[in-house]
Amino acid sequence: MRTLKIDEVRFDERGLVPVVTQDAHTKEVLMLAYANRETLLESLEIKKMVYFSRSRNQRWLKGETSGNYQELASLNLDCDGDTVLAMVHTSGPACHNGTSTCFEED
Amino acid sequence: MRTLKIDEVRFDERGLVPVVTQDAHTKEVLMLAYANRETLLESLEIKKMVYFSRSRNQRWLKGETSGNYQELASLNLDCDGDTVLAMVHTSGPACHNGTSTCFEED
Repeated sequence: MRTLKIDEVRFDERGLVPVVTQDAHTKEVLMLAYANRETLLESLEIKKMVYFSRSRNQRWLKGETSGNYQELASLNLDCDGDTVLAMVHTSGPACHNGTSTCFEED
Repeated sequence: MRTLKIDEVRFDERGLVPVVTQDAHTKEVLMLAYANRETLLESLEIKKMVYFSRSRNQRWLKGETSGNYQELASLNLDCDGDTVLAMVHTSGPACHNGTSTCFEED
């Protein structure tokens, strides 16, 4: 894996980058969300995934409400630097619908 | 998995939706790309992944140049309809760098 270096990330015109979040154990793709420079740095620091919510226009510590934090295993960057792949360990559902991933039927 | 129904996809202001492409066998996340309505419908029809290239602003049949087509196993949609998860079978590298995924070191 290509380990993320913050200065290699190509953020879009909104200052965001899409993050694909994958369960490090099951390999399931849990969700796609967005991050900015600050939330990527915070994720690396606290070892939990922190995103930037486009709908609420604010920092989003995943699990802050539900308790289902995503413990960070690794942050990786793709070949052209415009997509992040987060490998995480979870203890509960990733989706607000209560399903393990956001790609399941309700 | 929530099977994609085209009328449930929420395309962005450019008419695009991000597509996370995962190897159906190894479960590796291969790449993130974008599709529009037409290329999603074509992918379903020809059972190979067709994206929309933002840099070239045109339809992009993955594998047309390299021969490394992505045979479509399933197209799925996330809970809020704004991300597609494509499960594919591949016979060669996903990345133009020659690596199996776009998240590997060159």
